[in-house]
Amino acid sequence: MRNSSINKSYKVPKVKPINAEELIDGIIDGNIVELSKAITLLESKLSKHQGIANEVVDKCLPHSGKSIRIGITGVPGVGKSTFIESFGNYLTSKGKKVAVLAIDPSSQKRGGSILGDKTRMETLVNNPNVYIRPSPTNGALGGVAQQTRASILLCEAAGFDVIIIETVGVGQSEIAVHSMVDFFLLLMLSGAGDELQGIKRGIMEMADAIVITKTDGENILNSKKAKQRYKNAMHLFPASENEWVPEVTNCSAIENKGIEDVWDIIEKFERHTKLKGYFNENRSKQAKFWMYEKINDELKRRFYEDEEIAKQLPALEQQIIEGKISPYTVANKLLSD
Amino acid sequence: MRNSSINKSYKVPKVKPINAEELIDGIIDGNIVELSKAITLLESKLSKHQGIANEVVDKCLPHSGKSIRIGITGVPGVGKSTFIESFGNYLTSKGKKVAVLAIDPSSQKRGGSILGDKTRMETLVNNPNVYIRPSPTNGALGGVAQQTRASILLCEAAGFDVIIIETVGVGQSEIAVHSMVDFFLLLMLSGAGDELQGIKRGIMEMADAIVITKTDGENILNSKKAKQRYKNAMHLFPASENEWVPEVTNCSAIENKGIEDVWDIIEKFERHTKLKGYFNENRSKQAKFWMYEKINDELKRRFYEDEEIAKQLPALEQQIIEGKISPYTVANKLLSD
Repeated sequence: MRNSSINKSYKVPKVKPINAEELIDGIIDGNIVELSKAITLLESKLSKHQGIANEVVDKCLPHSGKSIRIGITGVPGVGKSTFIESFGNYLTSKGKKVAVLAIDPSSQKRGGSILGDKTRMETLVNNPNVYIRPSPTNGALGGVAQQTRASILLCEAAGFDVIIIETVGVGQSEIAVHSMVDFFLLLMLSGAGDELQGIKRGIMEMADAIVITKTDGENILNSKKAKQRYKNAMHLFPASENEWVPEVTNCSAIENKGIEDVWDIIEKFERHTKLKGYFNENRSKQAKFWMYEKINDELKRRFYEDEEIAKQLPALEQQIIEGKISPYTVANKLLSD
Repeated sequence: MRNSSINKSYKVPKVKPINAEELIDGIIDGNIVELSKAITLLESKLSKHQGIANEVVDKCLPHSGKSIRIGITGVPGVGKSTFIESFGNYLTSKGKKVAVLAIDPSSQKRGGSILGDKTRMETLVNNPNVYIRPSPTNGALGGVAQQTRASILLCEAAGFDVIIIETVGVGQSEIAVHSMVDFFLLLMLSGAGDELQGIKRGIMEMADAIVITKTDGENILNSKKAKQRYKNAMHLFPASENEWVPEVTNCSAIENKGIEDVWDIIEKFERHTKLKGYFNENRSKQAKFWMYEKINDELKRRFYEDEEIAKQLPALEQQIIEGKISPYTVANKLLSD
């Protein structure tokens, strides 16, 4: 789906051609405008842009890696924006530079990316040490995940110390986020009932920490009880490979309470995993995973975008559902075409 | 890696050629010998055999689907064999025909498949209403999973009412098993400590029921406490899409206690999911998933078995780990070769 042929059909107004060197120098200088331009290139579908983006990422690579990458998830209503605003401002008050990226391939369907409504994070948006980048609203999860991974590297090269990747805990995107961060934070509400319905199973066990949000007003008692319940449950969970026992804590983002505790947990996690070597081991694993994922995504794209395959697939799927033909046979048939 | 060229180089003793019709008729008649032959064909790497296996699976398809498919997992030492023996004998005493398949791609490494040591399940092996098939010891998880899925269909066509898929809860294989069964059972020990280390994170949240094994002798009190702890934890878990709340129960397989309760839970689950339509919905999803998985596995196999790719990959992986080149660039390079 490249647009180059379309571009050729009319006169493009003369603009300054994109220069990789300028972007690279700008990013390394911490220039937000150049950083944004480079991320836009990453998101572009034009192969010319992708070529430049590739070069920029590779040249920024030696300058990347020095941040802590934090994934934050939770269902809508849990208070993610409020939490990130309070957390981000706390971090900059400690002298950190904070980048907030979002990954949410479903955002288009729901009419706007998670971070689209920036008014929800007004003080953060206006904080000079914070860079907020909404989720790209086009493309499948695979592509969005690839772009976000590269964006993390660029933000690091631009000098950001903390990279927050925000997602909603209702789809496949948390698994993608989990595969690109050092620390995975799950926000939960105090009630153990209905509000849990939305969270996908398996996510709780991926969390390095659970934060019970909205521990304020009439919610305080329930929130503290919830903390204890989750704490007990965490002990029943299998230990993770990095020997970290997930922690549970309370916070009230609107009252700025408990935010420091969350950061303390993350710093403790960082010390623990760096001391034991798990931190870098995990990053190496993730980098390899990224390569394989990009290759595998592309192999699938090439196969399923084939016209003949795309035409046959719906009817064959239907026959599988009706038990008329085995999935095994359909797969063999499509592969041999 | 097909052996046909090797076979041509020497005189093969004349054997009766394999006849698909005979296999199909035999299987539908409930003939175990023919069933075993067909499963062996499924596991064969010869394309001739795979062709026949395909035909057999497709012809058996209309006769399949009438069983309940149960995945059973738990770390070594949890008492899986003892549980399956007791559970299997209980089921046959209720007039059921039971097939036990194993999926364990790592079995070769550990010197023998889970069910290889059949002496551990002596009474079950000799039970005329039970069919036990050890795990194929060759091949990657993908292939083993494909074969097991097809074997399930053949066992169903042969008239088995309950299909048990056994796996060890330490690798990727539980996810594969979870994608091919109706009900997923996790066996656990009473201690919440060290014995949990082996279970992979995320598996607990996949369980439809947890059974605390070895609830006998000095263990009784601890086991019952463990049951309560897990029960509490289960309520904190997000509800699954099928609105089923996972149950927790105790059992002692060597004393044949609590086995009936496990079956009651499974029957309750079956009624619940059939009433709500989730049972068939899940099977349709799984069938589609099987097709996509087979295609994707094959696409990857073709790519990574390419000589040029295989030769370059290790050095490129190393450069990724050392941060010398981005995974993104490596993927693009390999894909464009």
